[in-house]
Amino acid sequence: MATVKLWSDAEAEAHPQVKAVFDDIRATRKSDFVNNFWRGLANDPPHLKRIWEQLKAIMIADGAIDPLTREMIYIAVSTANGCSYCIHSHTAAAKAKGMSDAQHGELMAIIGLAGQTNHLVTAMQIPVDDAFQVQS
Amino acid sequence: MATVKLWSDAEAEAHPQVKAVFDDIRATRKSDFVNNFWRGLANDPPHLKRIWEQLKAIMIADGAIDPLTREMIYIAVSTANGCSYCIHSHTAAAKAKGMSDAQHGELMAIIGLAGQTNHLVTAMQIPVDDAFQVQS
Amino acid sequence: MATVKLWSDAEAEAHPQVKAVFDDIRATRKSDFVNNFWRGLANDPPHLKRIWEQLKAIMIADGAIDPLTREMIYIAVSTANGCSYCIHSHTAAAKAKGMSDAQHGELMAIIGLAGQTNHLVTAMQIPVDDAFQVQS
Amino acid sequence: MATVKLWSDAEAEAHPQVKAVFDDIRATRKSDFVNNFWRGLANDPPHLKRIWEQLKAIMIADGAIDPLTREMIYIAVSTANGCSYCIHSHTAAAKAKGMSDAQHGELMAIIGLAGQTNHLVTAMQIPVDDAFQVQS
Amino acid sequence: MATVKLWSDAEAEAHPQVKAVFDDIRATRKSDFVNNFWRGLANDPPHLKRIWEQLKAIMIADGAIDPLTREMIYIAVSTANGCSYCIHSHTAAAKAKGMSDAQHGELMAIIGLAGQTNHLVTAMQIPVDDAFQVQS
Amino acid sequence: MATVKLWSDAEAEAHPQVKAVFDDIRATRKSDFVNNFWRGLANDPPHLKRIWEQLKAIMIADGAIDPLTREMIYIAVSTANGCSYCIHSHTAAAKAKGMSDAQHGELMAIIGLAGQTNHLVTAMQIPVDDAFQVQS
Repeated sequence: MATVKLWSDAEAEAHPQVKAVFDDIRATRKSDFVNNFWRGLANDPPHLKRIWEQLKAIMIADGAIDPLTREMIYIAVSTANGCSYCIHSHTAAAKAKGMSDAQHGELMAIIGLAGQTNHLVTAMQIPVDDAFQVQS
Repeated sequence: MATVKLWSDAEAEAHPQVKAVFDDIRATRKSDFVNNFWRGLANDPPHLKRIWEQLKAIMIADGAIDPLTREMIYIAVSTANGCSYCIHSHTAAAKAKGMSDAQHGELMAIIGLAGQTNHLVTAMQIPVDDAFQVQS
Repeated sequence: MATVKLWSDAEAEAHPQVKAVFDDIRATRKSDFVNNFWRGLANDPPHLKRIWEQLKAIMIADGAIDPLTREMIYIAVSTANGCSYCIHSHTAAAKAKGMSDAQHGELMAIIGLAGQTNHLVTAMQIPVDDAFQVQS
Repeated sequence: MATVKLWSDAEAEAHPQVKAVFDDIRATRKSDFVNNFWRGLANDPPHLKRIWEQLKAIMIADGAIDPLTREMIYIAVSTANGCSYCIHSHTAAAKAKGMSDAQHGELMAIIGLAGQTNHLVTAMQIPVDDAFQVQS
Repeated sequence: MATVKLWSDAEAEAHPQVKAVFDDIRATRKSDFVNNFWRGLANDPPHLKRIWEQLKAIMIADGAIDPLTREMIYIAVSTANGCSYCIHSHTAAAKAKGMSDAQHGELMAIIGLAGQTNHLVTAMQIPVDDAFQVQS
Repeated sequence: MATVKLWSDAEAEAHPQVKAVFDDIRATRKSDFVNNFWRGLANDPPHLKRIWEQLKAIMIADGAIDPLTREMIYIAVSTANGCSYCIHSHTAAAKAKGMSDAQHGELMAIIGLAGQTNHLVTAMQIPVDDAFQVQS
C-alpha cells in the first residue's frame, strides 16, 4: 500500500491543477489510462506538473535517441535501483513501442553483464586508464 | 590503487591462458590497447576467459540491439551502480561507436529522470497497476 | 515471508533477554505494539539489545536535531536503499510525530531531486570543486 | 575528469540560454561562484534550465521544511547513493545554512543507523506490519 | 508477476537447448526442482546456458572457499542490492548446506554493521589511509 | 578530503573518551595504527564508542563464523554499496587474516556473479518460488 493517497478520477476532476495534468497525460498518450504514479504525485499539484512537463520533454518530445531506446535506458536504471514499479511500467511502455522478445532478451543480458562487471571493477578497485581520462 | 595486481604485458605474455585472451581482445577490437579491467581479471585466468567470452557474446556479436544502444544501456546501469571506471570506459566506447553530443546529453537527461522517478515511486511506495501485471 | 522466525509475545516472554528489550520498547514508546523488525532481531538476543540501545541513543534521546527531522532523514536513506519496510515504518513514525501533508510532499520532492542530481553528477563524473574541499 | 565539457565563464557568456541560467544562479545565491555541476549541465541548455528551475522550486523557495533540514535530507540521499560530489556540495551548503558540529554528528549517526537497519530488514526479509499499511 | 514468461516443464522439454540445461540443473543438484530464475532465463537459451555454466564454475565446482561461505557471500551482496528473490533462494541454499541459526544470526549482524559503516564512511568522505594503498 | 575533521593522535590524547577508545583499538589489534575511519568518528565521542564496541562484538569476539569469512562478507557488502574505503580496509584485513590469492580471486567471482544474477532477477521481476517461502 502506498504511503500517500492515490487520487481517484473524481478527486482529480475537482482540483483544476491536477485535472489539467491528467487531461494532458490522456491527450498526449491518446489513452484514458492514468497510472498510479501520477495519482500519487497529485498530492503535490505543482510537483505533479513539473514531473510531467519534464517527462514530456525528455521521454516524448522529438530527440536524437529513439523512443524505444529511451525506454530501454529507463529499464536499465530502474533495475539497478531496484524499482519494481518502474520496471513494470517501462517494460510495458517498451513493449508498446515495439520491443521484440529478442531485444528484451538482449536487454536483460546487457543489464546483467553490466551489473557483474560493475561489481568486479569495484571489488578490485580498478583505476581509470589514462586513455579514458580525455575530457570531451 | 587496485586491491589486486594489474598484469603488465610481459606478465601476460608469460602465461598462455592470459596471453590467449589478451591476444583475442586485441584482435577483436583491432587495437593494441588492453584496459586495466582485463589486467585485474588476469589474476584468475579461467574467470578472465569467462568474462571476456561473455562480453563478446553480449556486447560485440550481432544482435537485435545496435552496438551504440548497448553502450548507452551499459552507461545507464553503471551510473545507477556508481561505477566510475565503468562510466569512463563505456562512455569512451559509446563515443567511439558514434554517440553524438546531442545523444550524450539526452542519455544524461533520461538517466537523471529515471533516478528521480525511481526515488519518487519508492518513497511513495506506489503499487503496480493491474494493467502492468500482464505476463508476457 | 521472513527468512528468520518472527518471535511471538509468548516466545519473547519466555526468554529473559528478549523480554527485557521488548519491555523497554513498550515502556519507551508508551505503546503495547512491538513491530516485526524487533521480532526478527530477537533470534540473536545480544544483537537485539545492541540495535535497540543504539536506536534509543540516536533516534529518541534528546539531541540537536528534532525528532521529526530525524525521521525524515531516515525515510530519505531508506528510500535510496529501497527498503520498503523501513519506508513504511518510518513514514508512520514521522506522521505520529506531526509530519504534515505539506511536509511529506516536500520530503518526496527533495528525495526525488537528490536522486536525479546524484545520477546526473555520477553520469557526468563531475569533479569536486576546490571550494568544497575545505576540511572542517 | 568529467565525461562532458565543463563550461568556462567565457563559454557561458557567449550562449544566451546558458548565460541566463548562470546569471540567475549568481543572483539567487548572491555569490559569483558557479559550481561544476552547472558547468557540466550547460552542454544541454534546456536541461540546465529545467534542473535549475526545479532546484529553485524545491530547495530555495519558501516551504514547510526549513532550508537546513532540506540540505540534511539531500546529504542523506546522496550518501546512500554514494555520490561523493553531492555529499561535498550539500555538506558545504548545510554548513553555510548554519549546521552545527553537533547536528552534523547526529546526521552521520542517523544515516549510519538507517543504513544498518535497512540492511538488517532486507537480509531478514521482514514483512510490513499491518499497522503500517494504513493508507493516508 | 514476472516481465518475462516463466517456462513450464513441458515448454522446456520441447526446446533442446533449454531441456539440456534443465536436465543438467537437475542432475547436478540431484533434485527435480528447477526454480523460477532458470524458467525466466529460458527465454534466451544461449544466455541461460552461459549463466548456468558460470554458476556451476563459481558456486559448485571445487575451490578455495567452502560452499557454505560462498552462499553467505551471495546473501551479503544480494542484501546490499535489495534482491528479495536472491536472498530467499540463497538463504535456502545456505541452510541446505548446513548454515546454523547461530551462523545465520552472525551473518545478519555482519551485513548490518557493514551497511552502517559503509554509510558512515561515505557520509564523512573518509580518505583511504596510505597503509591500505599497497598494491598486491 | 573528508567532510569532518580527522583527529590527530595529539587531539585524541587530550579527550578522555576518545583516548579510551583509541587505546582500546590499539590494545585489541596489537598495533599502533589507528585508521582514518576512527579519526573521523572521534568528532562524536559517544558514537565512536558505540561503533567500536559493536565492531568488537561482531567482527572480533569469538563466534560461529571464522574471522576471515567475516571479512569476506564485509567486502561483499562494501562492494555492492560502492564504498571504496571499506573495500580497501577490509581487503587489507582479510589478507592479514590469511586470505590467499586463490580465495581472493574466488571472492571476486562470487561477488560478480551475485551482482549479475541480482540484476537479472530484478530486471525479469522473478517471483519467489513457494519452495523458498518456508519460514524458519
